[in-house]
Amino acid sequence: MSLIGQPLAALDTPALLLDLDRLDANLALLQAACCAAGKDLRVHFKSLKCGSLAKHLAARGVRAFLCAKLNEAETLVGAGIRDIYIANQIVGPMKLARLAHLAKDAAIRVCVDDADNVRAMAVAARQAGVTLGVLVEVDIGMNRCGVEPGEPALQLARLIHAEEGLRFVGLQGYDGHLQMSPDLVSKATRCREGLDKLGMTRAMIEAEGIGVEVVTGAGTGTWEWAAAHPAMTELQPGSFLLMDAAYHAVRPEFACSLSILTTVVSRRPAWYVLDAGSKAISQDFGTPAIKGHPGDKVLKLAEEHTKVEDQGAGPRVGDRREVLPAHCCATMNLHRRVVAVRGGVVEAEWPIESSGRYD
Amino acid sequence: MSLIGQPLAALDTPALLLDLDRLDANLALLQAACCAAGKDLRVHFKSLKCGSLAKHLAARGVRAFLCAKLNEAETLVGAGIRDIYIANQIVGPMKLARLAHLAKDAAIRVCVDDADNVRAMAVAARQAGVTLGVLVEVDIGMNRCGVEPGEPALQLARLIHAEEGLRFVGLQGYDGHLQMSPDLVSKATRCREGLDKLGMTRAMIEAEGIGVEVVTGAGTGTWEWAAAHPAMTELQPGSFLLMDAAYHAVRPEFACSLSILTTVVSRRPAWYVLDAGSKAISQDFGTPAIKGHPGDKVLKLAEEHTKVEDQGAGPRVGDRREVLPAHCCATMNLHRRVVAVRGGVVEAEWPIESSGRYD
Repeated sequence: MSLIGQPLAALDTPALLLDLDRLDANLALLQAACCAAGKDLRVHFKSLKCGSLAKHLAARGVRAFLCAKLNEAETLVGAGIRDIYIANQIVGPMKLARLAHLAKDAAIRVCVDDADNVRAMAVAARQAGVTLGVLVEVDIGMNRCGVEPGEPALQLARLIHAEEGLRFVGLQGYDGHLQMSPDLVSKATRCREGLDKLGMTRAMIEAEGIGVEVVTGAGTGTWEWAAAHPAMTELQPGSFLLMDAAYHAVRPEFACSLSILTTVVSRRPAWYVLDAGSKAISQDFGTPAIKGHPGDKVLKLAEEHTKVEDQGAGPRVGDRREVLPAHCCATMNLHRRVVAVRGGVVEAEWPIESSGRYD
Repeated sequence: MSLIGQPLAALDTPALLLDLDRLDANLALLQAACCAAGKDLRVHFKSLKCGSLAKHLAARGVRAFLCAKLNEAETLVGAGIRDIYIANQIVGPMKLARLAHLAKDAAIRVCVDDADNVRAMAVAARQAGVTLGVLVEVDIGMNRCGVEPGEPALQLARLIHAEEGLRFVGLQGYDGHLQMSPDLVSKATRCREGLDKLGMTRAMIEAEGIGVEVVTGAGTGTWEWAAAHPAMTELQPGSFLLMDAAYHAVRPEFACSLSILTTVVSRRPAWYVLDAGSKAISQDFGTPAIKGHPGDKVLKLAEEHTKVEDQGAGPRVGDRREVLPAHCCATMNLHRRVVAVRGGVVEAEWPIESSGRYD
């Protein structure tokens, strides 16, 4: 039986829900802000992983996406997206062949932080007869991947610029370590300091006569400072569309569109238990919240249970509750389908093709 | 191209690996121990979620499985398993209809802790023309689902016994709160105290003339005390087959058979970065370990990256490492397929049908 047009009561639980009115409002807010700031908006598909959702966004003006993995890029190509940036290191002959193959169907960009990887990538591109757009990943304080700002990035840019099959596009710098910081004053300062390093590196490369078309970075937690920074050409957030309890605490301008519909399966005097737990609701960024019941306190998630304290005031066995996850990206990855809802009515049911895939 | 018969080097990464020699040895150890203790072994499929793995175990003598969700029971039926216990509350008319339907294809047991749920379940069973085996879940200290030991459990047993379409089978009591405790002395005492509550409840029910065929419980972290307890008829562990870094610290008698094959994608003087992170390696029970490299320290998991400190002594970009997850059940749920390996050679590639499903 099709669920389209049905109310939420027709759904069995647990069900991952996406409120399209809230999603569309989140998109419109950031599109307007980027437009006003003269920056491009590229939406991070690692948060979404759902081809139909990419199509939904494309119909609302999103032309460019980035992602973390090749399989996500393949899902995007399958959804008709033609401007894709894989903001990650793609390493090894099998993956480089897939990367080059993708560039026959879409404009593909990728980032690098290793000279041998650049050379192997160029070989793969030439063998496939394609040109790959390449950005140098610069470590602006997260201390994960990337090269140091300045000279190391310049050296890699020179190498890319010289390799047939590759086109040097610009710089990648993500301040992942700042996204959740609640102290807006120190966060703004540290964010600008990181972006300044991108600006300094950009100037060094341009001084060599190598064009820097794109400087891209920022997430939902740092978008406003990137939008205001002269070195940046592009913002790359993703979570702002779905949102979660953790991001909402520091970014109240975006509404939580993602939730998990659950059923109460057990009732004791002081607590109730829901039929979804840590396997369906990521807790890597903290504890989820019960939508519309701010007094109910989530005590613990087990694999298939969420235990909520309410001192007996709340629901009975069989009643339903919506859970707001603390981390939207990881929660999307835990599900195989999402139910798109508007005004409490099911508008669509979408597969999440790239969930549970890391290749 | 089929991967069967290929060495690990032929696999792209990340890949979830299952070492069948280790798995088979883990199974043989606990089968022998249960046989010696005169207890039945029922294997928990919530940890496995893979129908082909259930078939593999059935071929080695495992006839009975339990699981946490209806979809897992459906995967088991699809794998030819005919003795299935859903150790969880099944609530709501849609799910009760599915539960009753399953009982046409297999002997189905389920547990309960709510009188209204018992009555609704009986209606569903009678409508489908089946008999469901029902266990009363008793809370023996975990404080999640279940009724209190003694009188509340007896009342529910009476109700089940009186309902046409249901057959009272026995008692469920899981000491999930004790599984990871490293203090074996206090753990043994607390475990026995919990099992004593099941024994006392069993005696109360039998004193009413209601037969108690099954008293089931225990996990990988408490199996030995349940095996020695006179009230118990059945053990229900699952993790012992796969194991993980967290369980191995308290249960060294079982070997870690589950790992994630990864590639180094970035290299800095003090650390390297692997191409799998928290989306592919559950960290809800702690930090994973690098197999065969005990000196390498996992510093942090991001969604698609694991950062490992090695002071430059270790691998280069493109080299490979195997990661031992800290929680096997949650890690199986993050993947759509598992590569079964024996002696470093691929023996099979199995879909994980119930991963990413909670219905």
